[in-house]
Amino acid sequence: MTPADPQPIREIGENRVVARFRRMAGVGEGVVVGPGDDTAVVRIPGDRLALFACDMMVEGIHFRQEWTTPEQIGWKAMAQNLSDIAAMGGEPGFAVASVAASGGTEESVVEGIARGLNEAARRYGSTVVGGDLVGSPGPLVVDVAVLGWVEAALVLRREGARPGDVVLVTGTLGASAAGLAACQRGLREGEDEAVARARRAHHEPAPRVPEGRAIAATRRATAMMDVSDGLSEDLPRLCAESGVGARVFADRIPIDAACRAVAARLGLDALGLATSGGEDYELLLTCPESAVGEVAAAVSAHGGTALTAIGEIVARPGVVLVDTEGREGALAAGFNHFAGEKE
Amino acid sequence: MTPADPQPIREIGENRVVARFRRMAGVGEGVVVGPGDDTAVVRIPGDRLALFACDMMVEGIHFRQEWTTPEQIGWKAMAQNLSDIAAMGGEPGFAVASVAASGGTEESVVEGIARGLNEAARRYGSTVVGGDLVGSPGPLVVDVAVLGWVEAALVLRREGARPGDVVLVTGTLGASAAGLAACQRGLREGEDEAVARARRAHHEPAPRVPEGRAIAATRRATAMMDVSDGLSEDLPRLCAESGVGARVFADRIPIDAACRAVAARLGLDALGLATSGGEDYELLLTCPESAVGEVAAAVSAHGGTALTAIGEIVARPGVVLVDTEGREGALAAGFNHFAGEKE
Repeated sequence: MTPADPQPIREIGENRVVARFRRMAGVGEGVVVGPGDDTAVVRIPGDRLALFACDMMVEGIHFRQEWTTPEQIGWKAMAQNLSDIAAMGGEPGFAVASVAASGGTEESVVEGIARGLNEAARRYGSTVVGGDLVGSPGPLVVDVAVLGWVEAALVLRREGARPGDVVLVTGTLGASAAGLAACQRGLREGEDEAVARARRAHHEPAPRVPEGRAIAATRRATAMMDVSDGLSEDLPRLCAESGVGARVFADRIPIDAACRAVAARLGLDALGLATSGGEDYELLLTCPESAVGEVAAAVSAHGGTALTAIGEIVARPGVVLVDTEGREGALAAGFNHFAGEKE
Repeated sequence: MTPADPQPIREIGENRVVARFRRMAGVGEGVVVGPGDDTAVVRIPGDRLALFACDMMVEGIHFRQEWTTPEQIGWKAMAQNLSDIAAMGGEPGFAVASVAASGGTEESVVEGIARGLNEAARRYGSTVVGGDLVGSPGPLVVDVAVLGWVEAALVLRREGARPGDVVLVTGTLGASAAGLAACQRGLREGEDEAVARARRAHHEPAPRVPEGRAIAATRRATAMMDVSDGLSEDLPRLCAESGVGARVFADRIPIDAACRAVAARLGLDALGLATSGGEDYELLLTCPESAVGEVAAAVSAHGGTALTAIGEIVARPGVVLVDTEGREGALAAGFNHFAGEKE
């Protein structure tokens, strides 16, 4: 057998696969014991609050192997967790990852996922310190839990938005949804730069970690979360937690250029993709009108990331979309994880 | 529709199911922000090291719904994680849990799992502070990540066992494997107290949290881990990390009485169940001969838990089982997660 032969993990054994995982992970500041013992042992700054969250991805719902590489699956699983840390204004610290895979899964797939997990973690200052690899009769499942920290004075919750606050979003929206649409309609990366960008946005999202820290450091934002299920699903959550409503202006939504191009080509509504597509992992935040300039400058200091005012917080509950003629309508409904498959 | 009607989660929607999760969780010491924001926010004692681990359970591999209640699935998923904290000598702090379920899963199943997760956490001083619930076309998957802490001087790793050390195990072995065998052979709980006890041991394991703390506090143990995959799989791991070998004496293995009874009834080898069955979540540790009394007294102080010397650490690598006539043989091979189904 040559090294190039595909090797399903059932023939290799758990210990060897896990040993490979271990070699990739666990080297980072604050790691006292990395992967391989009953738990990892890590140092957490004693003067901060700890942030703790998990996010799971399932094959056939959140990704398809024919559209994405194993590295991208791992990257995205980690990125969406790091995005949650960013949304609290925090710094990523450590991560653990569980993978369920059938015995017929090739070792290269598990290795690729591990590589993607580790690359995304390292890129944003985190370290993978442990994990679990289990057999399954079903689809590939990747679950990541992250641990980060934040100064008590800088925590940014979903509650705290006040009537009169401006609603802002980092970067652009809709590229990820356009990338998914491109995959579903069979558009290939090679044919078109916009398709390639949209697909990359869907499979390799960039969590806004430095931007989240910068926003928190201004102490001017009143509420923040990340856009994972789409503006139409996530903004109502922020408003509900804050006990307020919001008006969003359709012509201010920063629709990604690749989203516009792919939507035009496929005959889809770019605004709909941008408001209800989800998985852009941009930050959605509110702040007083007087703070917008300062917060935008802080965000821009990190690689020139844009911050766009898309609407305003109002006292009346509910989130409405206002069109260019001032007519109010609903933001499109979000995705129900259980009603059908996402991909 | 009456409240008793089964309601699949696809018809209820994610937000309502998640809202129910939230009401059950998140109330505990040190919780600044519980479930419902992008991450939980928790306080971790600044003078300790943090312990961080995850463990995943998959339907059809680690449990079957016809043999176990949803509460037991949640309990066990949490217990095996708490056992990892115990095995480091640590205190459990916080936990997050991800669940993948098909849209046809009844709400009562997800609720039962959440209840079990929370009950096990609370019983051992931990708090569930977050989670994720996602759709899946495949089997139920429950993944838990735990966060705990330990004083730097008390960390108990797998490395550190030295030739001449005694090998010890808490409690008894084999009840969980006997419980699984009872399920597989269709023995019912009602018919027999031993069957009922063995099935409970399999579905509701008790992690040795206070015992692990007590052992660590003696500062006499040289290495420790929990028995999750069976002595025959786990002791070689402890030895490999320590760079040593071990001799285990067959007649000293503390075979559980329920294991003996179920094995006799089913014509199975009780010793084999006790050494290679796994999932007993007892603690496996080593210490110098001179410390055995002190460590045993510390363990016994917590509800009278037994500590049994089962063998000795030797310099020569490899783990052997010594029978009553002094003949050396292999400990039975452990379970390969990918070679076939566990249940």
